[in-house]
Amino acid sequence: MSLLLRGAGGARGALRPCCPWGRAASRRGLSSSSGAGVRPGRRSLLAGLAGAAAALAGLGLARRAEMVSREPVAPSLGEAAEDEDELSRRCGDFMAPPVSGLRELRSRRQDVRSRMEMLIMETQSQVCRALAQVDRGATFTVDRWERKEGGGGISCVLQDGNVFEKAGVNVSVVSGHLSEEAVQQMRSRGKTLKTKNGKLPFCAMGVSSVIHPKNPHVPTIHFNYRYFEIEEADGTKQWWFGGGTDLTPTYLNEEDAVHFHKTLKEACDQHNPELYPKYKKWCDDYFYIKHRGERRGIGGIFFDDLDSPSKEEAFQFVQSCAKAIVPCYVPIVKKHSRDPFTPEEKLWQQLRRGRYVEFNLVYDRGTKFGLATPGSRIESILMSLPLTARWQYMHTPPEKSREAEILEVLRNPKDWVH
Amino acid sequence: MSLLLRGAGGARGALRPCCPWGRAASRRGLSSSSGAGVRPGRRSLLAGLAGAAAALAGLGLARRAEMVSREPVAPSLGEAAEDEDELSRRCGDFMAPPVSGLRELRSRRQDVRSRMEMLIMETQSQVCRALAQVDRGATFTVDRWERKEGGGGISCVLQDGNVFEKAGVNVSVVSGHLSEEAVQQMRSRGKTLKTKNGKLPFCAMGVSSVIHPKNPHVPTIHFNYRYFEIEEADGTKQWWFGGGTDLTPTYLNEEDAVHFHKTLKEACDQHNPELYPKYKKWCDDYFYIKHRGERRGIGGIFFDDLDSPSKEEAFQFVQSCAKAIVPCYVPIVKKHSRDPFTPEEKLWQQLRRGRYVEFNLVYDRGTKFGLATPGSRIESILMSLPLTARWQYMHTPPEKSREAEILEVLRNPKDWVH
Repeated sequence: MSLLLRGAGGARGALRPCCPWGRAASRRGLSSSSGAGVRPGRRSLLAGLAGAAAALAGLGLARRAEMVSREPVAPSLGEAAEDEDELSRRCGDFMAPPVSGLRELRSRRQDVRSRMEMLIMETQSQVCRALAQVDRGATFTVDRWERKEGGGGISCVLQDGNVFEKAGVNVSVVSGHLSEEAVQQMRSRGKTLKTKNGKLPFCAMGVSSVIHPKNPHVPTIHFNYRYFEIEEADGTKQWWFGGGTDLTPTYLNEEDAVHFHKTLKEACDQHNPELYPKYKKWCDDYFYIKHRGERRGIGGIFFDDLDSPSKEEAFQFVQSCAKAIVPCYVPIVKKHSRDPFTPEEKLWQQLRRGRYVEFNLVYDRGTKFGLATPGSRIESILMSLPLTARWQYMHTPPEKSREAEILEVLRNPKDWVH
Repeated sequence: MSLLLRGAGGARGALRPCCPWGRAASRRGLSSSSGAGVRPGRRSLLAGLAGAAAALAGLGLARRAEMVSREPVAPSLGEAAEDEDELSRRCGDFMAPPVSGLRELRSRRQDVRSRMEMLIMETQSQVCRALAQVDRGATFTVDRWERKEGGGGISCVLQDGNVFEKAGVNVSVVSGHLSEEAVQQMRSRGKTLKTKNGKLPFCAMGVSSVIHPKNPHVPTIHFNYRYFEIEEADGTKQWWFGGGTDLTPTYLNEEDAVHFHKTLKEACDQHNPELYPKYKKWCDDYFYIKHRGERRGIGGIFFDDLDSPSKEEAFQFVQSCAKAIVPCYVPIVKKHSRDPFTPEEKLWQQLRRGRYVEFNLVYDRGTKFGLATPGSRIESILMSLPLTARWQYMHTPPEKSREAEILEVLRNPKDWVH
């Protein structure tokens, strides 16, 4: 795999660190028998941060947070040296240096913010490397960009490859003050937020990806895992995770659908057996193209506002989901990337791509939020759109065709694993 | 030209008439010196009804209006017979029988509603016939559909022709009661509306079209002309017209831009010299893709809430605009339809089509309103989308290229006629 690292939008050079306040992660043990375990939260106005961590890049909401560090974690000298080596080693595999910089990450290395940033960077790297390998020689363009209000991101895009038409994996780590509008949106989803002079410092980070293959027998995948922290006027912090992984095939392959959902279920089940069914349903509900009466794809998992049972447990759950991305998807790509296909199958794929565009531009909250936010990085937000798409007036597949078969599943979601 | 007439969505058969109340059109003479002449109105939440009369099809807002006829126009016997012949003759040229039916149109033939329905049907027919002729043997599919809440429409679509990739010309004539949401939207744009038991009977009709040619040297055109009537609780009626015609070239051709704007200006100038500059600016403001900092195209004219100086004068202005569609566009198509083009030029066209999709799905009020309205005819609303489109990450045309030339005009609209 070759990498082309470039500065984007005149944002070369070191990125400023995000969230310059420190706090040790809570370390209560995981109790998989703790009732609902991780709380599903409500499908919310901001759920969309959902659709695209890319949209985090768009959080040009306010000025950069100026908070002082406190409660620094002070490990023993030996531990510190060991952790530093480990941190440097892990960073060496990333697509680009992490947004917050190694020094910053080291200074608060046990904080969930640092661990989440390492996780999203690692996820980006693992996915990009796996895709580049499958693509047999494709090039990822790596853009490292800075957000003037605080933080920045790393966008990796493979375009017009051998296997992939467009594959984007975006990381963003941003901070600043939430706009009044964003505060209202968060309040509308049930959050109590105490502002100070109308200001609310926040820190948000995530990894987001959409991968559109060329072959209509290889499905499109989307995933997004993100972490939010808000510091209220009295110094208390609110935090939550969100995310999900979902599959959009052009044609139904039941074996693939089962493999995909089973892999996600196994990741969820490690933490609580109630999570997969709950997040599977949430996914089916979220990726709904209302005006078509269809889901965008065959689903997967989706969650937001995850702030229980503890920060540590929620982080570990997100980590398990992130680690399931490559195993749930790459075997399906390998299996079908050389499948023969007809021009009619390619055309059906293009029509389905059109529906993908409709969902992303009309419904996806993350995309809408990003586009409406001044100073957002449009190219990262719209990275999710396919390279090519088609809209054909009154296209209706014949009954009992393979096109009708997938439509049936998009209209009436199935349970793929029991 | 061959026509394929089919019933769509199980909506075969005669359509029920729209707006079953009668009223003679006011017939004050046109005063071109009357100050602002026709009022520009405000860019409003519903301006979008704007973007697509297709969206009128989507006005599944409430139940069918049940209003009784009153004040019928009673012409002399000789006049009536002459008018009837004329009406039948004109209907004979339409793409399909008018939504309200000949009998209904005859019964209130001097009412602006009937004259507007005749105008939109005539416009549809003139445009379709002119396009089919230019396309050298293309087929228009004609769908006549019914809206269960009242009224219906006629959608004419030419897909994958010789010259045109996708050309849709849609007529809709719908009636019923406005939803509370629609009433609120109208109030928010300054209308005072007195409901009766929360109900507000309305009637809306329009012709809407988007024409995407294959050759990147032939521009896309969009036009839409519409008429709205609302009956308040005390029986008073509010009415207004809206509409516009705008051009979206892939490459700039100054001569074409001048011809297009000049033809529209001449149509406007017949009524009031202040109209063209006002509606040209409104058009540039409306078709703005905010997140890109670009207009969708090189503009044209756009207006809404037009309810002065009189219903008759406003109708005649709209009629002049409608009659300018073929002469402002078809000569440009003829001039360039055989121009040679490179794969790179086709690719740039596809990228610009992507922007067209972005505008229509993210900003166009008519499309958004239609998609959000239960029971709307999605195929008619999304008829405006191109057959094919493309999104390429970080595509930036070289400086001083022809691609950069059009971008400059999209970013900084020019005055084409003085």
